[in-house]
Amino acid sequence: MDFFAMTMKKEKLTIIKIGGKILDDEEKLNSVLGQFASLSRKKLLVHGGGKTASEILQSMGIKPNMAFGRRVTDSETLKVVQMVYGGLINTNVVAKLQANNCNAIGMNGSDANSIVAVKRPVGDVDYGFVGDIKKVNPIVIMGILEENIVPVFCGLTHDGKGQILNTNADTIASELASALAEFYNVDLVFCFELNGILKNPEDENSVIKGINEKSYVQLKEDQIISDGMIPKMDNAFKALKSGLQNVIITHYKNLEGTSGTRITLE
Amino acid sequence: MDFFAMTMKKEKLTIIKIGGKILDDEEKLNSVLGQFASLSRKKLLVHGGGKTASEILQSMGIKPNMAFGRRVTDSETLKVVQMVYGGLINTNVVAKLQANNCNAIGMNGSDANSIVAVKRPVGDVDYGFVGDIKKVNPIVIMGILEENIVPVFCGLTHDGKGQILNTNADTIASELASALAEFYNVDLVFCFELNGILKNPEDENSVIKGINEKSYVQLKEDQIISDGMIPKMDNAFKALKSGLQNVIITHYKNLEGTSGTRITLE
Repeated sequence: MDFFAMTMKKEKLTIIKIGGKILDDEEKLNSVLGQFASLSRKKLLVHGGGKTASEILQSMGIKPNMAFGRRVTDSETLKVVQMVYGGLINTNVVAKLQANNCNAIGMNGSDANSIVAVKRPVGDVDYGFVGDIKKVNPIVIMGILEENIVPVFCGLTHDGKGQILNTNADTIASELASALAEFYNVDLVFCFELNGILKNPEDENSVIKGINEKSYVQLKEDQIISDGMIPKMDNAFKALKSGLQNVIITHYKNLEGTSGTRITLE
Repeated sequence: MDFFAMTMKKEKLTIIKIGGKILDDEEKLNSVLGQFASLSRKKLLVHGGGKTASEILQSMGIKPNMAFGRRVTDSETLKVVQMVYGGLINTNVVAKLQANNCNAIGMNGSDANSIVAVKRPVGDVDYGFVGDIKKVNPIVIMGILEENIVPVFCGLTHDGKGQILNTNADTIASELASALAEFYNVDLVFCFELNGILKNPEDENSVIKGINEKSYVQLKEDQIISDGMIPKMDNAFKALKSGLQNVIITHYKNLEGTSGTRITLE
């Protein structure tokens, strides 16, 4: 069988990443989960954190430990991140999906050894218990998908030596997409509160339909793409290079990804 | 094929329940998890809560809400219970098992819709978000066991309508054992810090080797079995009546259950 025929035979898999601002708003979250539950194909959900972790840290009297504007995950912060991402948000999302007749299972990287990471080496800053992904085990995730169970991942991985690590959920979504692209035709959909990447932040209809590696450089120069969107885009290009079919950045009300911004290599 | 032959063909499954006092002690926990990881058969772990939930409640300034000496799970308490059981303890146990080459997956009742409960009806006391188990779905758990993945359950279930419920971990262990007894030769092992049920609490060698329904009545009358041990025993007898092979109450250093107290119907 040639490569083309093999590719054609792959089943479609949609990986959806939802971020903090959606998780923080019950109505938006219910809207996204309702749509997600009704997608009639193989699917996988990845969620971020939202502001709950900061609120719990505050209520426990733990001061945010920041370095160069980024949160340092010391051992007390890791505890809270584990509790909020893994215990509170992930479990609530799974229970809500079950209520929508979607047979979800909550996961983090330690579950079934699905995502192994290494603690980020100490450079100018020691970010603490933050993980950089070393290996995704797609076979075990495939096993779950093939049972028609829907994995729901939060932003936690493990190092294989008993340590949980706080890991960026955008990166988890991209790395899962890359690893599963060998077995499925994967669409990776990042959804947020805008219609896509906007040329003019004041005009919600100014969606840029497509971005490739070349136009990305220009958009960064023009500061249309900046801040938190840069690692998301870098992850997207990395995933596309590893064989992913589609990366779409779209509005949370349009999970099907029929509109929004499509990222391609060329 | 007659019933006897069918029974003989069933594979062995060991379900181990570990309680709070073991979870609260790093050394004991590591000892139990090391032994559990090295059991070379199908297995499943259930863990309780320990004192961490109370500590976190306290650090968040939430006052324990008690009624008749039992904790009432109001919505704030449920949040903390979810975070501690599902996010902190369960994830740490799974990561530690992975470090011991045991391919564990953390679960609660909402995961893969494995355990459905109903919110306990309000009687003299409203216990809040506490669940009484309605249904275990053994098939989905079997699917995981047959992939040689080891489920690790915490004391949380769901009501199928999006609500997580705090549920006694001993009951979860017994109900899982009953439901899986149709497919496996199940041993249910409750392990704690004593060698078994002691005739004389002052003498750790006074282990009662066997308890049946008749002697149980006498032991309760003599107050040798009292307090927290009563629901554990009631659950054990219920599980035995539904086809379970063995219930053993033993020391955490003897997970194999070769000593300890064996519970039988007759």
